[in-house]
Amino acid sequence: MDIRVVACDIFGTTVDWYTGVADQVAQLLPNVDAGDFAERWRDRYIPSMNRVRSGERDWAYLDTLHRESLDDLLRELDVEADDETRDRLVLAWHRLPAWPDSVSGLARLRAKHVTATLSNGGVALLTHLVKAAALPFDCVLSAELAHAYKPDAAVYQTAAALLDVQPEQILMVAAHKWDLVGARKAGLRTAFLSRPLEKGPNKQADQAADVDCDLYADSFLNLAAQLE
Amino acid sequence: MDIRVVACDIFGTTVDWYTGVADQVAQLLPNVDAGDFAERWRDRYIPSMNRVRSGERDWAYLDTLHRESLDDLLRELDVEADDETRDRLVLAWHRLPAWPDSVSGLARLRAKHVTATLSNGGVALLTHLVKAAALPFDCVLSAELAHAYKPDAAVYQTAAALLDVQPEQILMVAAHKWDLVGARKAGLRTAFLSRPLEKGPNKQADQAADVDCDLYADSFLNLAAQLE
Repeated sequence: MDIRVVACDIFGTTVDWYTGVADQVAQLLPNVDAGDFAERWRDRYIPSMNRVRSGERDWAYLDTLHRESLDDLLRELDVEADDETRDRLVLAWHRLPAWPDSVSGLARLRAKHVTATLSNGGVALLTHLVKAAALPFDCVLSAELAHAYKPDAAVYQTAAALLDVQPEQILMVAAHKWDLVGARKAGLRTAFLSRPLEKGPNKQADQAADVDCDLYADSFLNLAAQLE
Repeated sequence: MDIRVVACDIFGTTVDWYTGVADQVAQLLPNVDAGDFAERWRDRYIPSMNRVRSGERDWAYLDTLHRESLDDLLRELDVEADDETRDRLVLAWHRLPAWPDSVSGLARLRAKHVTATLSNGGVALLTHLVKAAALPFDCVLSAELAHAYKPDAAVYQTAAALLDVQPEQILMVAAHKWDLVGARKAGLRTAFLSRPLEKGPNKQADQAADVDCDLYADSFLNLAAQLE
């Protein structure tokens, strides 16, 4: 493998969305079960992107999809929340805690490779998130730049084009099978990073045994060691 | 002013293209006057972009324009250079020395604002350059993302859209009048950063007295102090 770029999924792979979102929900909606709320909100993530991917609706960036699925969830649970609270909840996804190995592991990867985000989050969201968690990325790449969503090939191919490398010179790192399947189809190399708690304590995260890819790691540090 | 984003021009403003390119030319083309060569190459920069801006030719990223103007210059000077040397010369623009205040000044700006590149260089070029010079930017934004070139309004407006801010929440920092005029027309705030040597020792750089903008600074540190 001639890896030039290590492209990283963010939600679940680099940061702990479950804890971060649940913490914000607990603060802003004190009367709901915050963990359950975070889970249900995230459950709407893939379906909301699929409506864009299928052409059922025009391109919309992730903040818009998050807001719509939040409104929908609040309606379903019959929870009251004013506009400002809703805006602040959507911004919870802009500031999420890194997994303990993410900063040190990415720093080590960055010493020998270009490190980039490659997430369905928008450029603004990712810029805020990377800055708040001090994640050592060389550049912020987003599905927004392709006006598409992973796992559409356009997202991975746009990343290769913008960084002026061949698809096989990018290693896509993710904790999700669907992302790695898409990356592989687009010609990228793939690494599964297992994050057993990424879906919270009640849901089973994707497991290495179910994913067919080039590398398997249980932390960014472990991945860096394998690439050295 | 409610500045959220400090967007920085790169060539001449953040890094010393003249010294960096002349050094590479001296190494790769030992028989030419390296400073003069760097100047002549850069003289072709604005005209080459104008051919894209006017619609005379399709979008092409800066590496392509640099390569074409290099080929043209070598022909004019009757200098021999093989393909590999030409490729390496084009890459000289990917690795340029920062001005002495750029790293510390940008770090100080980054503490309170989002710092972004906003250059006519492509995403790959900027990613390489920012990484090599360890410039503390939160994200890499390029004219390439608008398929346009500064001073076209689309470049500045694309930056605002991607970072989800109003144009007047971006402060464009540049050592060039033409860039700041374009930014201002697009609704951005503007700061002139004087770089007396940015065109080398033989050419007059743009001067503060000739530029109409919101702020004037002689270093990134000085600009950070004014914003605090």
